[in-house]
Amino acid sequence: MSLPKKHLFDLPDGIIYLDGNSLGPLPKGVTEVVQEMLTAQWGAQLIKGWNACGWMEQPSRIGTTIGRLIGAPEGSVVLGDTLSIKVFQALAAGLNMRPERRVILSDSGNFPSDLYMAQGLIGLKQAGYELRVVAPQEVGAAIDDTIAMVMLTQVDYRTGRMHDMATLTKQAQSAGAVMLWDLAHSAGAIEVDLAASNAELAVGCTYKYLNGGPGAPAFIYVRPDLADQLAPALSGWLGHDAPFAFEPDYRPAAGIERMRVGTPPVIQMAALEQALCVWDDVDMADLRAASVALCDLFIAEVERRCPDLTLISPRDGTKRGSQVSFAFAHGYAAMQALIARGVIGDFRAPDVMRFGLTPLYIDAADVVGAVDILADILDNRLWDTPEFRTPKRVT
Amino acid sequence: MSLPKKHLFDLPDGIIYLDGNSLGPLPKGVTEVVQEMLTAQWGAQLIKGWNACGWMEQPSRIGTTIGRLIGAPEGSVVLGDTLSIKVFQALAAGLNMRPERRVILSDSGNFPSDLYMAQGLIGLKQAGYELRVVAPQEVGAAIDDTIAMVMLTQVDYRTGRMHDMATLTKQAQSAGAVMLWDLAHSAGAIEVDLAASNAELAVGCTYKYLNGGPGAPAFIYVRPDLADQLAPALSGWLGHDAPFAFEPDYRPAAGIERMRVGTPPVIQMAALEQALCVWDDVDMADLRAASVALCDLFIAEVERRCPDLTLISPRDGTKRGSQVSFAFAHGYAAMQALIARGVIGDFRAPDVMRFGLTPLYIDAADVVGAVDILADILDNRLWDTPEFRTPKRVT
Repeated sequence: MSLPKKHLFDLPDGIIYLDGNSLGPLPKGVTEVVQEMLTAQWGAQLIKGWNACGWMEQPSRIGTTIGRLIGAPEGSVVLGDTLSIKVFQALAAGLNMRPERRVILSDSGNFPSDLYMAQGLIGLKQAGYELRVVAPQEVGAAIDDTIAMVMLTQVDYRTGRMHDMATLTKQAQSAGAVMLWDLAHSAGAIEVDLAASNAELAVGCTYKYLNGGPGAPAFIYVRPDLADQLAPALSGWLGHDAPFAFEPDYRPAAGIERMRVGTPPVIQMAALEQALCVWDDVDMADLRAASVALCDLFIAEVERRCPDLTLISPRDGTKRGSQVSFAFAHGYAAMQALIARGVIGDFRAPDVMRFGLTPLYIDAADVVGAVDILADILDNRLWDTPEFRTPKRVT
Repeated sequence: MSLPKKHLFDLPDGIIYLDGNSLGPLPKGVTEVVQEMLTAQWGAQLIKGWNACGWMEQPSRIGTTIGRLIGAPEGSVVLGDTLSIKVFQALAAGLNMRPERRVILSDSGNFPSDLYMAQGLIGLKQAGYELRVVAPQEVGAAIDDTIAMVMLTQVDYRTGRMHDMATLTKQAQSAGAVMLWDLAHSAGAIEVDLAASNAELAVGCTYKYLNGGPGAPAFIYVRPDLADQLAPALSGWLGHDAPFAFEPDYRPAAGIERMRVGTPPVIQMAALEQALCVWDDVDMADLRAASVALCDLFIAEVERRCPDLTLISPRDGTKRGSQVSFAFAHGYAAMQALIARGVIGDFRAPDVMRFGLTPLYIDAADVVGAVDILADILDNRLWDTPEFRTPKRVT
């Protein structure tokens, strides 16, 4: 593998893009593949596209491709829906595996939608269920034999702090709990070995480090030995054993296929499948080494040149995902000023300036160039104008 | 309005497409709009697209457009997810409105996924809930004061039989039940006046008569006076009152926005929004009249020339959607033979040959041309070859 693979992306001129952890950039070839899908598949094949163009198998086919990036065996990952829906599915399935327990354990560093979906599920179950949220560093100590499931996002969306997947999974399972990992900021960002972790369930999204495009579908992993036992709560027809028999009662399909729900978003799937070609010859160990080096360089440069910013990500690269965050009281305005100068990171309330460093299309020169501009903005208080101080809705 | 609008679609040469009730054809302009979305929006704007390109408002904006076609006021419809997920959301919300009741009433003509999703929800609630399924003609008599919700698909996917929305809604509500309509085969096919019906909830899909493309997102309607009271079970971050405040607890957004869940499929949304432009000057009363006339013509021609086929759709156009179905013992093989000759309908087990007649792009000449070929196939038993008799997977 050679990194970076900047030549495989259509990046706008004059932009240093440090927000691939929110939305990855457009890989080359995606536009052409989607156009072909629209005209030669949908347009020309019409309803026949479902069979003739492989639309029906796409969610599993892409699942296998993503599986290779996260240490999941063939046939254990399927695409569909949004990450929030996949969290709900995984939680419902996991609770069903521990019917005598009532607690979902998570942490305050989890992405809020994961917590919200747990709250919604608990509201439905009406039987004394509880979502227990502790600080990230207290998760291990909070695992006991009342816990039905431990639900964690491996890499904290704000700070990049990374949980130890193997250790926490082992701890959860020793206490009899089911382990669910959210890999939103892991897949395509760090080395993940789901099979080795022995975790029962995992979910993730594909529009961040996997560059699948805005609203690209999510994925769900079920440990292969469990897939045939899970009771799907979102029991849609495409998870049925015989969807086109139109039987009156739900019978789950074999294996991971039962985690499908409704008709897959074929246009998004086409974009995603092409976007994943970037990964064909990427070795995740190489990528991880390059990512840690870029993050280390960024931290060193910012700390050397921008003393007003305080690192809130782990300094130790082995405890950090592929992003670096700094706290700064005027972080919102500074980020707007930075974006106006062509360095795109993002801001998370209350004061977090967040930068994704993705070695597929970011190199050391980009890092130094970005800090040049950041230092100039801070040294000269260029953020201190009404244009940048006025909060707009931040995505 | 002038019908048909065949010039607004990219239909393949030599094809008579009578399956727009499964997947509508490609409207002109969609490919160009999607290409622009990929390059000028995602590619050039990157993460800024969420604000700069209106991606965040798209689900509500498209909801308003679709609302005009189904008699729903502005701000009462939102797009997202799949129809199965929207059915689940609507069922969970409706059951929550009648906490003292335990029965969901539906009919055997409903699309199976709607029934499956109800089964999945009931499995979660663990409190004596029941899905009661009766024959379509027995729904009225089965409504009593044990029923929490009545869930019906207005137009039967197999036969085209149409429920009387106003009457059944009134009957359900008189018995204290919440009414949920699935408009999968109604939206864009017939006149629907949701507001006049007074129904609490409705859902539908956009890849059939609305031509949004394979896997286009679904929609959900909530009667405006109820929207602020509903408790969303699929409580995702984009249905939160302040998604970007990243609060630990879910607080539903005002109105229909709370029925959003996760990140919307922006590429699919772009295709759908362009596809809906076809409807700009369509009067639904004109469309309905044209649809009934086409279906009547098709029935008359088939009955005159194909005596082996038995009509299973209502003969009375006022009791039928925009499709016509015939039973034929060799229906599977006959449909394959028909498709091979360029007339695309579809088959539904065990013996249903189904034809969608959509006046936007089908005219009387198409109907006569299709029956010419059908009659030839039947008269000469052209279906009776191994090629067509061998069942393949049917979508």
